[in-house]
Amino acid sequence: MTEEAAFAFDDSDLLPAIAQDVDSGDVLMLAYVSPEAVEQTVETGLAHYYSRSRDELWKKGDTSGHVQHVQEVRVDCDGDAFLYLVKQEGGACHTGYESCFYRQIEELNEDSTAETQIVAEKVFDPEEAYE
Amino acid sequence: MTEEAAFAFDDSDLLPAIAQDVDSGDVLMLAYVSPEAVEQTVETGLAHYYSRSRDELWKKGDTSGHVQHVQEVRVDCDGDAFLYLVKQEGGACHTGYESCFYRQIEELNEDSTAETQIVAEKVFDPEEAYE
Repeated sequence: MTEEAAFAFDDSDLLPAIAQDVDSGDVLMLAYVSPEAVEQTVETGLAHYYSRSRDELWKKGDTSGHVQHVQEVRVDCDGDAFLYLVKQEGGACHTGYESCFYRQIEELNEDSTAETQIVAEKVFDPEEAYE
Repeated sequence: MTEEAAFAFDDSDLLPAIAQDVDSGDVLMLAYVSPEAVEQTVETGLAHYYSRSRDELWKKGDTSGHVQHVQEVRVDCDGDAFLYLVKQEGGACHTGYESCFYRQIEELNEDSTAETQIVAEKVFDPEEAYE
């Protein structure tokens, strides 16, 4: 069944996109996308995002080589979030972990910090990947 | 190994949180959380979010009964996104699908819309759940 979806980009013309490993099912990262980032992702089959800190379109893996081959792009019910189903080269996280979500919260503190447990192993050396 | 994490809440005191089904691995939804929503989630073991449209703390399933039992809360490398690993009662999406990401983009149009394919089956009748 087909349906037309409308994207609800916010005032900054951005929306969040989740990258999920299509094989393991692991949620790898959350980043933001502009309309152009979504277009480039669909067109090239490689995940593109929009860097809010650098204020520019960003092809994931441009520096590290850790590109994401996008098998599917999904959009949610409200058209305000995307899901990229990807095959990840190397690891998604700049810290060397496969997933950016490598820390499990054990206890919340008062000041918006938390004690966490690291629940993953590094898959690459970030100093080599980003030198 | 343990690590202290700092949360980077934005100017609105919100951050995105992804809910993932801990059994199937399906990404169920993306919503926003306030510090209080994270606290309530950790304290009660039931997923809480912050509704931007209603401007209030929101316990998922309050109306529909489709609560999310949270097994783990993870935080990402930059402390600006959360991942809830949940056991979902009923379905996560108000449309009746298990996941809000039930549409796969097939073709982008010029005007921030897209042709999509529906890639899931409804798991409940939204008219009954939200009457």
